[in-house]
Amino acid sequence: MKMNQFVIIGLGRFGASIGKELIELGYEVLGVDRDEEKVQEMSGILTHAVIADATDEDTLRSIGARNFDCGVVAIGDDVQASILAAILLKELGVKKVVAKAVSELHGRVLERMDVDRVIYPERDMGIRVAHQLVSPNLLDYIELSDKYTIAELGVPACLAGKSIEETNPRGRYGCSIVALNKPKGMIVAPTATDTLAEGDVMVVIGTNEQIEAFQDAIGQ
Amino acid sequence: MKMNQFVIIGLGRFGASIGKELIELGYEVLGVDRDEEKVQEMSGILTHAVIADATDEDTLRSIGARNFDCGVVAIGDDVQASILAAILLKELGVKKVVAKAVSELHGRVLERMDVDRVIYPERDMGIRVAHQLVSPNLLDYIELSDKYTIAELGVPACLAGKSIEETNPRGRYGCSIVALNKPKGMIVAPTATDTLAEGDVMVVIGTNEQIEAFQDAIGQ
Amino acid sequence: MKMNQFVIIGLGRFGASIGKELIELGYEVLGVDRDEEKVQEMSGILTHAVIADATDEDTLRSIGARNFDCGVVAIGDDVQASILAAILLKELGVKKVVAKAVSELHGRVLERMDVDRVIYPERDMGIRVAHQLVSPNLLDYIELSDKYTIAELGVPACLAGKSIEETNPRGRYGCSIVALNKPKGMIVAPTATDTLAEGDVMVVIGTNEQIEAFQDAIGQ
Amino acid sequence: MKMNQFVIIGLGRFGASIGKELIELGYEVLGVDRDEEKVQEMSGILTHAVIADATDEDTLRSIGARNFDCGVVAIGDDVQASILAAILLKELGVKKVVAKAVSELHGRVLERMDVDRVIYPERDMGIRVAHQLVSPNLLDYIELSDKYTIAELGVPACLAGKSIEETNPRGRYGCSIVALNKPKGMIVAPTATDTLAEGDVMVVIGTNEQIEAFQDAIGQ
Amino acid sequence: MKMNQFVIIGLGRFGASIGKELIELGYEVLGVDRDEEKVQEMSGILTHAVIADATDEDTLRSIGARNFDCGVVAIGDDVQASILAAILLKELGVKKVVAKAVSELHGRVLERMDVDRVIYPERDMGIRVAHQLVSPNLLDYIELSDKYTIAELGVPACLAGKSIEETNPRGRYGCSIVALNKPKGMIVAPTATDTLAEGDVMVVIGTNEQIEAFQDAIGQ
Amino acid sequence: MKMNQFVIIGLGRFGASIGKELIELGYEVLGVDRDEEKVQEMSGILTHAVIADATDEDTLRSIGARNFDCGVVAIGDDVQASILAAILLKELGVKKVVAKAVSELHGRVLERMDVDRVIYPERDMGIRVAHQLVSPNLLDYIELSDKYTIAELGVPACLAGKSIEETNPRGRYGCSIVALNKPKGMIVAPTATDTLAEGDVMVVIGTNEQIEAFQDAIGQ
Amino acid sequence: MKMNQFVIIGLGRFGASIGKELIELGYEVLGVDRDEEKVQEMSGILTHAVIADATDEDTLRSIGARNFDCGVVAIGDDVQASILAAILLKELGVKKVVAKAVSELHGRVLERMDVDRVIYPERDMGIRVAHQLVSPNLLDYIELSDKYTIAELGVPACLAGKSIEETNPRGRYGCSIVALNKPKGMIVAPTATDTLAEGDVMVVIGTNEQIEAFQDAIGQ
Amino acid sequence: MKMNQFVIIGLGRFGASIGKELIELGYEVLGVDRDEEKVQEMSGILTHAVIADATDEDTLRSIGARNFDCGVVAIGDDVQASILAAILLKELGVKKVVAKAVSELHGRVLERMDVDRVIYPERDMGIRVAHQLVSPNLLDYIELSDKYTIAELGVPACLAGKSIEETNPRGRYGCSIVALNKPKGMIVAPTATDTLAEGDVMVVIGTNEQIEAFQDAIGQ
Repeated sequence: MKMNQFVIIGLGRFGASIGKELIELGYEVLGVDRDEEKVQEMSGILTHAVIADATDEDTLRSIGARNFDCGVVAIGDDVQASILAAILLKELGVKKVVAKAVSELHGRVLERMDVDRVIYPERDMGIRVAHQLVSPNLLDYIELSDKYTIAELGVPACLAGKSIEETNPRGRYGCSIVALNKPKGMIVAPTATDTLAEGDVMVVIGTNEQIEAFQDAIGQ
Repeated sequence: MKMNQFVIIGLGRFGASIGKELIELGYEVLGVDRDEEKVQEMSGILTHAVIADATDEDTLRSIGARNFDCGVVAIGDDVQASILAAILLKELGVKKVVAKAVSELHGRVLERMDVDRVIYPERDMGIRVAHQLVSPNLLDYIELSDKYTIAELGVPACLAGKSIEETNPRGRYGCSIVALNKPKGMIVAPTATDTLAEGDVMVVIGTNEQIEAFQDAIGQ
Repeated sequence: MKMNQFVIIGLGRFGASIGKELIELGYEVLGVDRDEEKVQEMSGILTHAVIADATDEDTLRSIGARNFDCGVVAIGDDVQASILAAILLKELGVKKVVAKAVSELHGRVLERMDVDRVIYPERDMGIRVAHQLVSPNLLDYIELSDKYTIAELGVPACLAGKSIEETNPRGRYGCSIVALNKPKGMIVAPTATDTLAEGDVMVVIGTNEQIEAFQDAIGQ
Repeated sequence: MKMNQFVIIGLGRFGASIGKELIELGYEVLGVDRDEEKVQEMSGILTHAVIADATDEDTLRSIGARNFDCGVVAIGDDVQASILAAILLKELGVKKVVAKAVSELHGRVLERMDVDRVIYPERDMGIRVAHQLVSPNLLDYIELSDKYTIAELGVPACLAGKSIEETNPRGRYGCSIVALNKPKGMIVAPTATDTLAEGDVMVVIGTNEQIEAFQDAIGQ
Repeated sequence: MKMNQFVIIGLGRFGASIGKELIELGYEVLGVDRDEEKVQEMSGILTHAVIADATDEDTLRSIGARNFDCGVVAIGDDVQASILAAILLKELGVKKVVAKAVSELHGRVLERMDVDRVIYPERDMGIRVAHQLVSPNLLDYIELSDKYTIAELGVPACLAGKSIEETNPRGRYGCSIVALNKPKGMIVAPTATDTLAEGDVMVVIGTNEQIEAFQDAIGQ
Repeated sequence: MKMNQFVIIGLGRFGASIGKELIELGYEVLGVDRDEEKVQEMSGILTHAVIADATDEDTLRSIGARNFDCGVVAIGDDVQASILAAILLKELGVKKVVAKAVSELHGRVLERMDVDRVIYPERDMGIRVAHQLVSPNLLDYIELSDKYTIAELGVPACLAGKSIEETNPRGRYGCSIVALNKPKGMIVAPTATDTLAEGDVMVVIGTNEQIEAFQDAIGQ
Repeated sequence: MKMNQFVIIGLGRFGASIGKELIELGYEVLGVDRDEEKVQEMSGILTHAVIADATDEDTLRSIGARNFDCGVVAIGDDVQASILAAILLKELGVKKVVAKAVSELHGRVLERMDVDRVIYPERDMGIRVAHQLVSPNLLDYIELSDKYTIAELGVPACLAGKSIEETNPRGRYGCSIVALNKPKGMIVAPTATDTLAEGDVMVVIGTNEQIEAFQDAIGQ
Repeated sequence: MKMNQFVIIGLGRFGASIGKELIELGYEVLGVDRDEEKVQEMSGILTHAVIADATDEDTLRSIGARNFDCGVVAIGDDVQASILAAILLKELGVKKVVAKAVSELHGRVLERMDVDRVIYPERDMGIRVAHQLVSPNLLDYIELSDKYTIAELGVPACLAGKSIEETNPRGRYGCSIVALNKPKGMIVAPTATDTLAEGDVMVVIGTNEQIEAFQDAIGQ
């Protein structure tokens, strides 16, 4: 089942960003916030935006919340409002409810409400930023599992002009370059003779230790 | 040059998360916040945590801010404090300064302060969540360029038992499976005969359109 | 299993009243409130009273909340604190948790937290007062079921001097006088010849309609 | 004289609950509150609901307060407003005035105002809850006098299958079972051969000590 | 019985002024206020001054309020505190309690508390000032009854040099000059030949109409 | 010159009382206050009442302040507003300006503004009340000079039935009874044979010491 | 290029004064402030005055800020608003932007925004006042360079009647009188025989030391 | 008489700037402010700085305010405090008192307090800035009288290389160049053959119209 209609409760920076992106991706989005100013700001961007208290059952009913495929509770700091909005969306029969949590405990309460997914945006973003800070070449990464990571690494000056064979991350550190992003285009599954240039971007897969060792070797 | 010593200005959820992760990664972190409660909470976690006003030049000097390799201005909503702390860190000679922005305009001011990197955590996290909401199989992804994306996709029931050859994403949609994460371990560069099971995770590289087409095909 | 040790979260009028009565009944009670003044007021009355934030897991642990047989969340208007304290008591392993709710919705969230009993003191007291207001002879009552009630009725002037036989509530209205409280003592299961005096109190059992009819007949 | 028309000053949780119940019982109720939101919420429920300051004599007069049989001052925490509203209702000639008190001292002032009945809902409800907490079988009770109580007790597993004769509370503890509520209906004045089942409810009358002894005996 | 020991509740401008004057008149005065600053200011002036909440029974008892001959409740705008302090002083057995009221209704409540005297300083002072404003010669006055007034009138230029016989207020307007205050001393019961000088002050007794007529005649 | 038209700045309890009394005395009064509620309350009582900021020159001009014979600045606690309103009234040419001061220093500033009369209502009323508190017989009094006072004294039981000759205050204490207020009417300049009754009121003139001595003699 | 059209952001005392003077000098001025009251006050004085938030890009665009020759950011204490308004005016293409700074650090941020001129009105005015305070004859002055000053000095009594030749500031102290302002008119470049009178004003040019020495000589 | 000892009431930006400059000029300065933070900031800069309420007579006396030659009331926005501090300094006998006014009306009150000089820093600075804004060459100026001004003008490109004779401001516009500030030094009373260079600064004296005409001619 694909989600088509979204209702977003809370139009702060996080909720607004979700809403804008969903609209860009071609979905219908209803935004709800108690704050008139925020609603006005988003009213030209989202499909609809209404000033409403999402902790009031009658209000949620009157805006037809039950008809949405997915509800996003993106309320910022008001833990009470977040919990009440989440339980109401669930009880009204919204198929999928995701909610932002501001603390571990808040997250645990949301899970008891049977919220389908709990998100910790500041915590997750903080972790991502920390990794990038300590590895100047690390542009982005995905933790595939506890052990494996896929990392997007900038090619530093010290590797410029070398072929993948010469660099040999698989032989030396155990991790593989699965793609090479060059100004002229992406090379998926590059061959041993493909040459690295400063500013190219390598997509590397391997265990955390392998990638770390490779980063350390090229990181000065 | 590797960063070894970090000073984090602002110990809210975002700053605290960066600090904790840096500590886990083995770095030294000084946390600074005006709020005594936040400092106390982090004092057992970070290398040091001090109550201080980071918009006061003398204060920053007295805590030795100049000796840090990297300063992170993670101040939440006080745009003025964010700007003043950023300019002071730059002027004190901190090698690298990254700062959180809460709006486009805030970000532009920070760039004029010669901040090395401006981060929009709520905006970026919102975009990431939006993508995951609309693609139930999408676990995570990296935008490699305007055109190319690497995506981590859950294997749905409809693909269970099929080999990569049968699935044939490269032939049908143009995108390649560069890794396959199975319970028994990661298969980097899987071969045509490797078989998919429900709950396996595929790492797929391709253009946005190719991956979207693949997702659509497997997404019901 | 009998409850012996109670922890009461929130020492407002409701929580304080529970605490005082439990002490009078011979139990041990720990009172917890964020407000220093309220804690001081109760510190001479309860077994112990501490200033603490009951929404903080470490705090609850440090005061040994897990060792209590029963936790009462009597927090007044702070719905968030009520929910967080309730989930923490449950997770810490307190055997029985009862909590006050200020609204239907609040009560539903508490029930999702697996709270053992949800109490609505203002609502229940309001109903009780309403019944007494409309029936001047009605001193108190218990709803035994949807249909049956036991009521404590003052004997009005119009019945003074009559025997139970003459009054004959069972014959006329279907309800029975199971006890008669006279200044000189309680007569359990009074006989047909026992005489009513103004100011005596009858304990009457019957269906709601029977008792209402009896009240109406004697209520002018 | 029966009360027919009620005016309720203060539409908080307690006042609202009284109002709703009176309406259910078929009476006319005017609700008064300074808070527009509370008045709106109750305007569809009560006969009338008006936004007004009940401490202003002219206001009370203009809403015809004098014509009501009974005034209920259910104001929450504003002791001053409670006192002023109470004296005004008395002076305007309302036949019966009952008022909620939040403290002993508040209650004593209200009594000096010749208020007909002073209610302490949180205190009374707290006492009732305390009794139920310490006696798992106790469902509800009425204190008939300082000495006598009528209690509604659940039949525990240990009594299941026993006849009243076998249980013999009157012989063993001095208290009598005056009614037995079974799923199939209420047995008023049950006989010695009536049998108890788990989940039945006994209505027991006796002195406090007798009932306590009976509860203790069946309470593990 | 003469009053010797006074306790003043509320050390605002009115209470402070009473306290200072009582000290000047040679009495012992205890001042009580919740506001530390006000207590400090008066602590060098009154016999004692303590920071205390006069609406708390235990507090009033601990400062020995019962031992005072007279209690003055001079609390400014906090009607609730005024009422509670007044009832407590009465209940503690203070022989005489006088209290300031800020409105008619407040005064009526105080009277129900059996306060011995209710004072309306702003109202009374306003009336006094109004009379002086409309009669430039009127320095001060006492209303002896509904009908009679004693007034202190400045001698205007138009009467300078005239004897009392020539002025003849008794003959012309019916009011009598009972004293004449001249720079060289007071003449009690002046004779017909005593002469008026500009700036002398006449003490005149008569009905309100007589004195008004006399004032009008000399008032231009 | 007689004052006919008054403007009162500040309609608190003091200003309102002046306004009401001036209206009763037959004068025209314009009331001015920033507070809409106070203006509404007085609008049916005074000739006119307007909501205006009396510290704004244009505002005062537009309400025609210059045409008033007398301006009363009765502003309560806002010393700044009091000073600015006073200087504006003076500069606009109001003939006579009187103003309330809340402290010595405030009064001195007002005098520098050439305010015609500075009034300290709380201070003066406090002094008056203090005198009455210490002399149970003293009903009211006027200080005629530093030395002389005229006092209105109730006749105590101990003087009942005595003639003025027997009482002889002039012979014993030096002070004279200039009037005797009896239920049947006022006796101005009573003779030696006029008899006192309990509850009569004597108007006594004399030095402070003489009157005090007389009061002491009759005061038990 | 001459500036003809000005937009002033912030209509506090400083911004209002600039606006009024620019209007007097014949220029067009648009005033912008968030505060309705301030805008109303200036709306009759400036060419236009609008209520707007100058930190909002769309708002600035909609009021046509880009068409102004010069923007003055005169915002008082809100450093954030000052910085954001300044960067927006620059980015919108306003030719010249001057801004008020409240601290050194604020000024440094504004300079990084490429603000054309940063003004510190309180600091500069404070310096100017300090100089005048210590030199009673100093009316005003301009610091021409670190070394040279031009000063406007009152002629003290001790110089009255002396000719410039006799006074001889150039010979004695090295500074020259370049103009002499007398009641009958200004004498530019006065000659040796021009005579000084008390109250005349000398315009003196010289080094700081020379002028100070001259001031000291005539300053008692 | 020269001023040697200064007391500054109010250590905001304006007061602090006066204080710092007076210290630089070699005078003793006592700073007074109610705000602890401001006092701490200035305590290392001024001779003394104390936390005190300058509207309290005893406080001013205890810090020896009477011994100062000059008092500066630099209080920002609290008009009441400014007025009370000013009158107290005058009454304590401070020889010279200058005070900052925030409005015309405030200034008029201060003048009635006999304050020696009233300063309007924001107003005056605003006027000065306005003049500089409209004349790009105008660096600074002094208004010598209603008619005459002395101005410091930058030499624009169009005058570069011309002699004073060629420029001839006196002949063409009537105003004279009384000094010419060149990088190599100041030329007082330059001769006709002195040559102007771009970036030199001319000191010009003349009537307002003459200088304006000269500015207009050279101002493009």
